[in-house]
Amino acid sequence: MDYASATPILPEVRRAMEKYWSGKFENPSAIYAEGVSVRREVEGYRKQIAGVLGIKKADVVFTSGSTEANNLAILGAFEMVRDPLNKTQAIEKPHLIISDTEHSSIREVAKEVERRGGEVSFAETDEYGRVSVETIRSLIKSNTFMVSVMLANNETGVIQPISKIGRAINLWRKERGSKYPLFHTDASQAPNYLDVNLSRLHVDLLSLDGSKIYGPKGVGILATRASNALLPIIFGGGQEGGLRSGTESPALIAGFATALTIVSRDRKKESERLDLLKKYFVSELEKKLPAVKILGGEPALPNIVAVELPQGILNELVVLAFDQSGVAVSGGSSCSNLHEGGNESLVRFSLGRGSHMNDVKKVVKLFPQIMERVKISP
Amino acid sequence: MDYASATPILPEVRRAMEKYWSGKFENPSAIYAEGVSVRREVEGYRKQIAGVLGIKKADVVFTSGSTEANNLAILGAFEMVRDPLNKTQAIEKPHLIISDTEHSSIREVAKEVERRGGEVSFAETDEYGRVSVETIRSLIKSNTFMVSVMLANNETGVIQPISKIGRAINLWRKERGSKYPLFHTDASQAPNYLDVNLSRLHVDLLSLDGSKIYGPKGVGILATRASNALLPIIFGGGQEGGLRSGTESPALIAGFATALTIVSRDRKKESERLDLLKKYFVSELEKKLPAVKILGGEPALPNIVAVELPQGILNELVVLAFDQSGVAVSGGSSCSNLHEGGNESLVRFSLGRGSHMNDVKKVVKLFPQIMERVKISP
Repeated sequence: MDYASATPILPEVRRAMEKYWSGKFENPSAIYAEGVSVRREVEGYRKQIAGVLGIKKADVVFTSGSTEANNLAILGAFEMVRDPLNKTQAIEKPHLIISDTEHSSIREVAKEVERRGGEVSFAETDEYGRVSVETIRSLIKSNTFMVSVMLANNETGVIQPISKIGRAINLWRKERGSKYPLFHTDASQAPNYLDVNLSRLHVDLLSLDGSKIYGPKGVGILATRASNALLPIIFGGGQEGGLRSGTESPALIAGFATALTIVSRDRKKESERLDLLKKYFVSELEKKLPAVKILGGEPALPNIVAVELPQGILNELVVLAFDQSGVAVSGGSSCSNLHEGGNESLVRFSLGRGSHMNDVKKVVKLFPQIMERVKISP
Repeated sequence: MDYASATPILPEVRRAMEKYWSGKFENPSAIYAEGVSVRREVEGYRKQIAGVLGIKKADVVFTSGSTEANNLAILGAFEMVRDPLNKTQAIEKPHLIISDTEHSSIREVAKEVERRGGEVSFAETDEYGRVSVETIRSLIKSNTFMVSVMLANNETGVIQPISKIGRAINLWRKERGSKYPLFHTDASQAPNYLDVNLSRLHVDLLSLDGSKIYGPKGVGILATRASNALLPIIFGGGQEGGLRSGTESPALIAGFATALTIVSRDRKKESERLDLLKKYFVSELEKKLPAVKILGGEPALPNIVAVELPQGILNELVVLAFDQSGVAVSGGSSCSNLHEGGNESLVRFSLGRGSHMNDVKKVVKLFPQIMERVKISP
């Protein structure tokens, strides 16, 4: 019940990686036949990913995960606009807008933008944790270099109106003949259930992570249609079009591409399947545990059910009680800034490819018992 | 003949990674039993690595490779000393010293230090590509925040006098009661053949890469005895003691630790074995190809033989000719700044655990034939 935290690796993903662990180890930058062959395969995987995202092959930048991708998107764009050598696009005191329910890898980067002399605004979300186009638009200023809003929330599953925000930003830019602000979305939680095509989402930059899509940990991508608006954050041999240095890991790249292709292929079917489970889960919880509040409205991911516990009950106790019964659930990110509700009271159930009705029934049966237990515990 | 570019993965490494690919996928930050178990194993691997390096467990920072580790060491220290919030250790126009034969992941970071308002000095190397303690010492100024010199050169195998430089830096610091300059070494090419104990090397920071030590690509470490002198370069969930955010990859960590342990265990035996092969290789080349110049003097790694071709012969032609005969050799990094000789004329042979006398004999026989061929080619 914690697929939003980490997913197991698909057998197809393991098989795609296997040959690079057991034999094909050559450096993709080498110019002899073996290196060229590895390079060709890496570029094939890059093309496969680009196809899913509707972008050009060269717009896929491999990173160590979505945390690094988020850092590259925001700090890379920030450094570009404040670069003293950048005469044509320079922005004084570059301004960043993020929603107030972003993941720590966006919030902490925002702090770093402030430390480096930039400015940050937080777009307030409503009672369901949703940000509105109007709120974003009202915050955009002439020095705004980027807006970053996650596609789907990792704690509540709430889906943000990304394509609407993207269209509003496009309009703003067109009216002023500016390429700024850029629009970035952390889509780490999305690809299993949502379309992640950059054109349809109207985003310039999009981050993904292998470990949330049944792929390997240690790899992610920044998909970017604004690569000339970025400086790198890791410097060296100039791999990844100069945007991310360091020898590529063909195994991790093969694993990531395979995972993304499979979850995209199965997106519709899996969304419908989990949606039924979620509906049952929510309706049973509402019946059996009226004291807990189910967070977030529609639209939301079909795999996340987040509940707020009654006041005075620590979520850690509930997580540990579930653990003792063999059910892995999450108490939410340790340093969350969720608009709605205190963080100590959040319990997140997140379903995945291995979740079935009997799992949900087990939780529905256990939860009331656990609530009774933790209420009387000290 | 290109082990310095990438190494195959040891079977033991593959086995150590396997369980995390096939089952144990949980997020090491999760608080339920499965997450705690993964965390415990990650910390066990961290301890194993710390043991090899003679440092504390908390001083091992996992990164995506040595390129990122080099970036973290230099840019992390740079940002700390120029941080406007840092009153006690602030340095005006922070000054970096690197040798003039560093890897691109140091040279490009040095450029970034300049772009961010710092200052860089290049320590000249002698005809063998070696930097002297005196040269380093003469460049240290009151605003020098770091000296970075690689332990062993990736193109010539030349070993730098790291512990001597480290002692000189220690003395400089002691005399002035300063913690600066910090001393960093990129030891990526070293662990298979050299001691990488930080105390014995007298270094504060040391970078390693999985892909050079028969481990996986996509993982490395920054070993640091100066973690409080660093700011992160990737921000987020605060993993790795706050120095490197992003979900850790237990598979890659297990692979890295296993590889480092094995190459350290076999270090002496393997060095002696390859030293004999290298001696034979060099003496045969001197006999059969007096026109080529063998680069670098002693001390040098036992696995690298770098030669300078006679003027007018492009190394790429030689690399491709070897390739056609089934031998993988390197023409040197594409953007090298090797002090000695032009880069177009370098051919590097690098041996490894799979290299035997028959491989060397094959090259010794092929090389003169190839030289004849490329001389008459257009």
